[in-house]
Amino acid sequence: MPGPAEIVDKRVERSKAAVLAETYRQLTETGIGGLSIDEVSRRSGVSKATIYRHWPSRSALLLDACSRLGGAADVPDTGDFQDDLLGLARGLADQLRTAAWTSVYPSIIDAAERDPEIAAMQSALHSGWMKPFAIVAERAKARGEAPAGLSAPVLTAAIVGPLFYRRWFSKEEIDDRFVTAVTETAVAAMARQTP
Amino acid sequence: MPGPAEIVDKRVERSKAAVLAETYRQLTETGIGGLSIDEVSRRSGVSKATIYRHWPSRSALLLDACSRLGGAADVPDTGDFQDDLLGLARGLADQLRTAAWTSVYPSIIDAAERDPEIAAMQSALHSGWMKPFAIVAERAKARGEAPAGLSAPVLTAAIVGPLFYRRWFSKEEIDDRFVTAVTETAVAAMARQTP
Repeated sequence: MPGPAEIVDKRVERSKAAVLAETYRQLTETGIGGLSIDEVSRRSGVSKATIYRHWPSRSALLLDACSRLGGAADVPDTGDFQDDLLGLARGLADQLRTAAWTSVYPSIIDAAERDPEIAAMQSALHSGWMKPFAIVAERAKARGEAPAGLSAPVLTAAIVGPLFYRRWFSKEEIDDRFVTAVTETAVAAMARQTP
Repeated sequence: MPGPAEIVDKRVERSKAAVLAETYRQLTETGIGGLSIDEVSRRSGVSKATIYRHWPSRSALLLDACSRLGGAADVPDTGDFQDDLLGLARGLADQLRTAAWTSVYPSIIDAAERDPEIAAMQSALHSGWMKPFAIVAERAKARGEAPAGLSAPVLTAAIVGPLFYRRWFSKEEIDDRFVTAVTETAVAAMARQTP
């Protein structure tokens, strides 16, 4: 049987989860700019006093909610560099087409231009999301499939750049033909890189 | 000698220019979210009544000021496809490294996620900025230097995508080595495209 301390802990966890879920929901509707603690409190049923006990400021809650946006992808390990990259690119394309965080992310990118706390959070989010590309590249190097001098950041920009570009800037379709072309181009370019 | 009507016209033009300049200055400091008509009026010295006479709403002023962000690039015409593209990519990279509009643009991208008027304005801005890539591609096709089946949107995404990615997402340096590598990769990929 849970003791009284455990019951309180569970209640606290439930309140925090409700606040984070409602914050996340609001972010997807309005972006960072429209987030209101009053509204989070009203819709989550958690009092403002309790919210401010867990997150001392609107920024603190914002950072916590944003840092939970989408997790890193599983790292494919097919034994073939191009197939691994295709797996990552297709996974990302799928997210860009459907995931709710993609409508929140521009408000983080925007705020990061002026707010160093948000910039640090965005940088950490970004690194986590891009890590699988570096892992896949390291494995391909270890297998002798990719040149030792291959630059994972250049490879990542060549694949992720065009996908992000279509999602947020040109708003063109990110279909499988495009994802495949982008990935094959990046791999072919890497093969030309001198070590 | 200017008649009275011309004098009034000039005064109106001066006021409008002052309001737009101040709006633009504020946008570069705060993004779309922080734009305040009170502040624009105070700092431009143009009354709110006059501002609202020219722009019926905050959105109208915003749209007008944003649509003046950076002009389209000159279209290089060196007679060589890769050199033309390098010229465009270097010009864009230079803007991304230094131009004030680059810190405003994410707030437009963010607002475009939720506001159809801003989305239409962003779409028009984007098309204008990307047009030189399509023109350069058309000329290369006409010279027989690029395959007839070359997709200008895919080419544009392959060059602009990685540059935008570094400016707003990874925040890595956009040096000339990177710009050259991105452009050469895109051109090499196009050469492989079947018509």
